Amino acid sequence: MQKFVPSANVEEAAYQALQQRGVTIEEIAKLTYFLQSKYIPDLTMEACIDSVHHVLQKREVQNAVLTGIELDLLAEKGLLSSPLQETIQTDESLYGVDEVLALSILNLYGSISFTNYGYIDKLKHGILEQLNDKSTGRVNTFLDDLVGAIAAAASSRLAHRHRAEAEQKME
Amino acid sequence: MQKFVPSANVEEAAYQALQQRGVTIEEIAKLTYFLQSKYIPDLTMEACIDSVHHVLQKREVQNAVLTGIELDLLAEKGLLSSPLQETIQTDESLYGVDEVLALSILNLYGSISFTNYGYIDKLKHGILEQLNDKSTGRVNTFLDDLVGAIAAAASSRLAHRHRAEAEQKME
Amino acid sequence: MQKFVPSANVEEAAYQALQQRGVTIEEIAKLTYFLQSKYIPDLTMEACIDSVHHVLQKREVQNAVLTGIELDLLAEKGLLSSPLQETIQTDESLYGVDEVLALSILNLYGSISFTNYGYIDKLKHGILEQLNDKSTGRVNTFLDDLVGAIAAAASSRLAHRHRAEAEQKME
Amino acid sequence: MQKFVPSANVEEAAYQALQQRGVTIEEIAKLTYFLQSKYIPDLTMEACIDSVHHVLQKREVQNAVLTGIELDLLAEKGLLSSPLQETIQTDESLYGVDEVLALSILNLYGSISFTNYGYIDKLKHGILEQLNDKSTGRVNTFLDDLVGAIAAAASSRLAHRHRAEAEQKME
Repeated sequence: MQKFVPSANVEEAAYQALQQRGVTIEEIAKLTYFLQSKYIPDLTMEACIDSVHHVLQKREVQNAVLTGIELDLLAEKGLLSSPLQETIQTDESLYGVDEVLALSILNLYGSISFTNYGYIDKLKHGILEQLNDKSTGRVNTFLDDLVGAIAAAASSRLAHRHRAEAEQKME
Repeated sequence: MQKFVPSANVEEAAYQALQQRGVTIEEIAKLTYFLQSKYIPDLTMEACIDSVHHVLQKREVQNAVLTGIELDLLAEKGLLSSPLQETIQTDESLYGVDEVLALSILNLYGSISFTNYGYIDKLKHGILEQLNDKSTGRVNTFLDDLVGAIAAAASSRLAHRHRAEAEQKME
Repeated sequence: MQKFVPSANVEEAAYQALQQRGVTIEEIAKLTYFLQSKYIPDLTMEACIDSVHHVLQKREVQNAVLTGIELDLLAEKGLLSSPLQETIQTDESLYGVDEVLALSILNLYGSISFTNYGYIDKLKHGILEQLNDKSTGRVNTFLDDLVGAIAAAASSRLAHRHRAEAEQKME
Repeated sequence: MQKFVPSANVEEAAYQALQQRGVTIEEIAKLTYFLQSKYIPDLTMEACIDSVHHVLQKREVQNAVLTGIELDLLAEKGLLSSPLQETIQTDESLYGVDEVLALSILNLYGSISFTNYGYIDKLKHGILEQLNDKSTGRVNTFLDDLVGAIAAAASSRLAHRHRAEAEQKME
């Protein structure tokens, strides 16, 4: 039988990795609220938190989170080979693997979240500003894109749900 | 021998389609300038126009432009089947095929342009505001995303070129 | 309030479009079975049919199906502008918008289905051979890619489900 | 001034990484030849080798190669955190970040190469069979997908070039 890594371990590790890098579910949910509250007037933080949890249930999201944060950590400790070490450590502007991982999260919820991701990434809203602070010695090259993508994906998920509810009310 | 559509025809048709929908190369280049001028201090409009032309040389870009504008035009004339007709005509918020085509343009220049695309799309900068004016009776559901993607792709292309030049000067 | 197209209409239209183009859910499910039965020994056709239905519940999939089949139909009737008309009618080898739509379906189920899609597309397994028969006068430029993508997505969905069940049994 | 990693270093490191993992340009080019020779009757190995080199000039490709091989190497040495360590070491079937990186290479050359990538990945043609041999103790979870993607991208590039030449001859 083919070996496999238990899903519960992968999920738990993804949550832990975010926590250990100082990112709470609430902070991600605040980004989701920022993105979606203009379209859903009665949106609550609870709904945003719930949506972020749903996004984090997906194995693809967990794998992207674990892979990206691992690379951030290894770069922070100086353990990568050159020139990948300098590339990730300095968040080199021509390095796009972080955005590639972010996109793999966004894609799971369809294309309507692409622009939301780009928007908060440029604005450096909320926790994204803090994650982009290069003066701390921390390396968050992957983390900031992952957080933005999870928030945008949760936002897209809410848009789909909100529509379903609005249609049910009209029946 | 396999039949094929001459490249010159495809290219010419893509340029014409943009022109007939009121989008000039200059307007797209202005978006590129807006996105890239903060990173390249001596950026000129000429360089942006040149970069937009380079993006428009790619067959994949031409195909996306021709397909998207065709769907806009057919929706404007009411010639699509229901419910695709209403979906494209009203720029339905859960319809993401327009973003999918935009992404196929962005992907050609790597992932560093994703966030630029999302940013100008949300800001509705420059000609994008005009293309999003729903009061005109025109349908630009695909066109605004295509224009944003071409501008962002041209911006990404400039970032790569600028780096190459900066490195040459340092040698 | 923003106008929207009722979800039930979009879903029904997507099912009808497939049916009118001669594609049954069973034929798509056979492709899924072909792809996945080597990995899931006790896989049933019922499970494959069920998985295809789940994929077809997604709005993004419905939108891709409706858009692609509409373009096939318009090309079949000769109603598109030149050179898009000839491009889609002859399934021009440098035209990739059909694969772009297929990829937007695959992406919803993560990246593990990419290779399955490519594999059945090249093999022209099952109904894909029939859809690729250029002697019929029918235009299935988009349809064959959509069908392959739905089958591969349903296959990926089964792989995730199968794992979850295997883990539950081990507990 | 923003720090940057010299392009020459990134390129050289990507070539070295492939070589150190036992992958020659010739072996990648053989895959390209296998994929494209049925469409281009007079295709030479020289043209395939040249096309692979062109693909490897792209910064996005170099970044994907360096990132993927680094993760393979770290997994081989047992230096990753659990459960990412086991996931990459065993080439876990639900882990798709390797395909995500492969797709970021394919996307640079448009969508016509997607199916080629899936096809050779499933067939395990040429060097791909050797890279998939799990009995060696080596970890090539990323490498096999990167090699398949580079070969498919080089194949797509040849298809575009071949068309351009065919059109020139007809004039």
